[in-house]
Amino acid sequence: MSRFSARTGFSRTWNPLAQALAERRARGLPLLDLTETNPTRVGLPTPEPALLASPEALGYAPEPQGLLSAREAVAAHLARRGARVSPEHLVLSASTSESYSWLFKLLCEPGDNVLIPAPSYPLFEYLTRLEGVEARPYRLPRGHGFCLDVEEVAAARDERTRAVLVVNPGNPTGHYLHEGELEALGRLCAQEGLALISDEVFSDFAWDEEAGRVPTVAGRELPMLTFSLSGLSKVAGLPGLKLGWTHVGGPDTLREEALARLELVADTYLPVNTPVQLALPGLLAHAPRFQEALLARVKENRRRLLQARSREALWDVLPAHGGWSTVLRIPLALGEEPTCLALLDEGVAVQPGYFYDFPSAAFLVLSLLPPPDVFAAALAPLARVLDRSG
Amino acid sequence: MSRFSARTGFSRTWNPLAQALAERRARGLPLLDLTETNPTRVGLPTPEPALLASPEALGYAPEPQGLLSAREAVAAHLARRGARVSPEHLVLSASTSESYSWLFKLLCEPGDNVLIPAPSYPLFEYLTRLEGVEARPYRLPRGHGFCLDVEEVAAARDERTRAVLVVNPGNPTGHYLHEGELEALGRLCAQEGLALISDEVFSDFAWDEEAGRVPTVAGRELPMLTFSLSGLSKVAGLPGLKLGWTHVGGPDTLREEALARLELVADTYLPVNTPVQLALPGLLAHAPRFQEALLARVKENRRRLLQARSREALWDVLPAHGGWSTVLRIPLALGEEPTCLALLDEGVAVQPGYFYDFPSAAFLVLSLLPPPDVFAAALAPLARVLDRSG
Repeated sequence: MSRFSARTGFSRTWNPLAQALAERRARGLPLLDLTETNPTRVGLPTPEPALLASPEALGYAPEPQGLLSAREAVAAHLARRGARVSPEHLVLSASTSESYSWLFKLLCEPGDNVLIPAPSYPLFEYLTRLEGVEARPYRLPRGHGFCLDVEEVAAARDERTRAVLVVNPGNPTGHYLHEGELEALGRLCAQEGLALISDEVFSDFAWDEEAGRVPTVAGRELPMLTFSLSGLSKVAGLPGLKLGWTHVGGPDTLREEALARLELVADTYLPVNTPVQLALPGLLAHAPRFQEALLARVKENRRRLLQARSREALWDVLPAHGGWSTVLRIPLALGEEPTCLALLDEGVAVQPGYFYDFPSAAFLVLSLLPPPDVFAAALAPLARVLDRSG
Repeated sequence: MSRFSARTGFSRTWNPLAQALAERRARGLPLLDLTETNPTRVGLPTPEPALLASPEALGYAPEPQGLLSAREAVAAHLARRGARVSPEHLVLSASTSESYSWLFKLLCEPGDNVLIPAPSYPLFEYLTRLEGVEARPYRLPRGHGFCLDVEEVAAARDERTRAVLVVNPGNPTGHYLHEGELEALGRLCAQEGLALISDEVFSDFAWDEEAGRVPTVAGRELPMLTFSLSGLSKVAGLPGLKLGWTHVGGPDTLREEALARLELVADTYLPVNTPVQLALPGLLAHAPRFQEALLARVKENRRRLLQARSREALWDVLPAHGGWSTVLRIPLALGEEPTCLALLDEGVAVQPGYFYDFPSAAFLVLSLLPPPDVFAAALAPLARVLDRSG
């Protein structure tokens, strides 16, 4: 009899690419790392650590949803983005990962499922399975520019579906939700009794203006239960501080029941460090400076990437509107993994599309965070390897 | 169709005692609060907040098990208590609550169960149910002085039992595990394939010396998988910092598989704030000062309680050896809730035994943390109310 659960029986085999990358690092060889998404390692502005050492930092006055002063700071942050919300409808957690864990517990019996976009960041498989919940993918159709297609969501649903998860803007696809899509999603969710979980961690990082864009579902009048997730990790570039938030919205009765249950769940774990809760107003006051520097960085790196592509190239930079990454479509014949390995031989690390569950055809994912000199130095080997098929 | 899960369908009805306490607080009436267990509110020493503001505090170098420097500090802390452990066998989390959540995921399929001592702190009902796991109580027999009786553990086990949980020393019963009990538990666990989860958050707070006491199972050669839990909340009196640890022990193959799976679980949530991990050596260096002050406090309060009891009293202070609380047996005729309500009318708050799932007969639970003047002022009304039946 096995002594461990099926829900923690994840494969721990490394793929050849992860192995090659680890070996290269172990040998101390130079690396132009276009997989770097840690905002604290790329020379962007950070606030003063002294913010964490307020006189009350070592005290303890637990409030399950989070200190009111911290929730008020989040509400003010959302208000500056046009979303008017009550601090009473916010729940703090240590991260959006933890928020997901609480929402899956709230909405799902073991064996129920939630609908997850594909392609997307591969964490959802872990987060659902650990709660005894199934992640059912719905396609972001390539023909639709990887935007949300509600028909695909409806097709993926079955009688055990409890929620639809949207990543807005998509990671790494970089498309925002739009008004028409939200309206159609609202009809589907209200009709089928589904909640909407909206991951908005990259929402502040728009590269351009677009008509009809929905930056957040928080503060909207919608016919279904909604959960909008974000946190310090992306908003202020401070993943080490471990503070995320969830806004709960929707019809009053549903919202109040959801909040009462989430309060009990939060009270069971009380995971958020007091010093960071006390520092939150100051940390969010720093966010605009970080976001401005980050946006300048990603736009400049993307501009250089587009410039590096020759007019006859057989690879493309996919259109997108925001986020920290960009996606390349490459010739199918090259293959994702061989291309990544060939690039690694040239000292450039990028991610293959299959890591994000892209459909057939071949894609690469590049972080736009690296310092300009690192990013620029990677472009010549990148173009050389990708043009081999040309 | 309900939109919420059964596992979050906890009762939210307040009992009459909680209501009366809230009303008294809302009216601003004076209160001698012998339910206070928040170590930051009772005038005990705290370290300097500046510890949290190290230059690297806002950086991020995630390690799923926790920063090596932090795990080394925990290993050194355990070594000072005679437990020799490797930092490689430690996993940090935001709290012991979170550690439990990970261990129940690791060991249990939905519908499996773990054995939980009764009486004990009432959080386990929540922690198990949220993971789809059943908490099956085993009795700490009153005739046995509320010590562990392995026969009771064996009797509570069924074919879906995956682990035995011990609280060492018991909360609020204050008895430590002893060598003979651990040996018998080891035989049962090894024979039935059960893991031992040992909650040792109060282990540093012994009131006396005892032969054969087991302060921790960490670092022991035992025939079953073991998990020893503790954290800053009790060890250094800093619950707001949110840092706990789990030591994984037992036969090599089982231990390594458990660690590999826990690493993936921890990697999914990465819940521990970087500033507190960096500050951990300094925070644990402060722990002895806190523990010394706390022990002096609880011993002095307990001495006064014993002194306040007249020789003819029909109530008793139960024998115990450690922890932050003490248990009174009171005349059955008084009833737990009426006694608590009568005390509240006198301005004294205590907890009824049923809150901790004590067996029939009547008990009260008192925190020994309040400042000496608060504790002493509560003793006259306490004796008056308890002696009414005499």
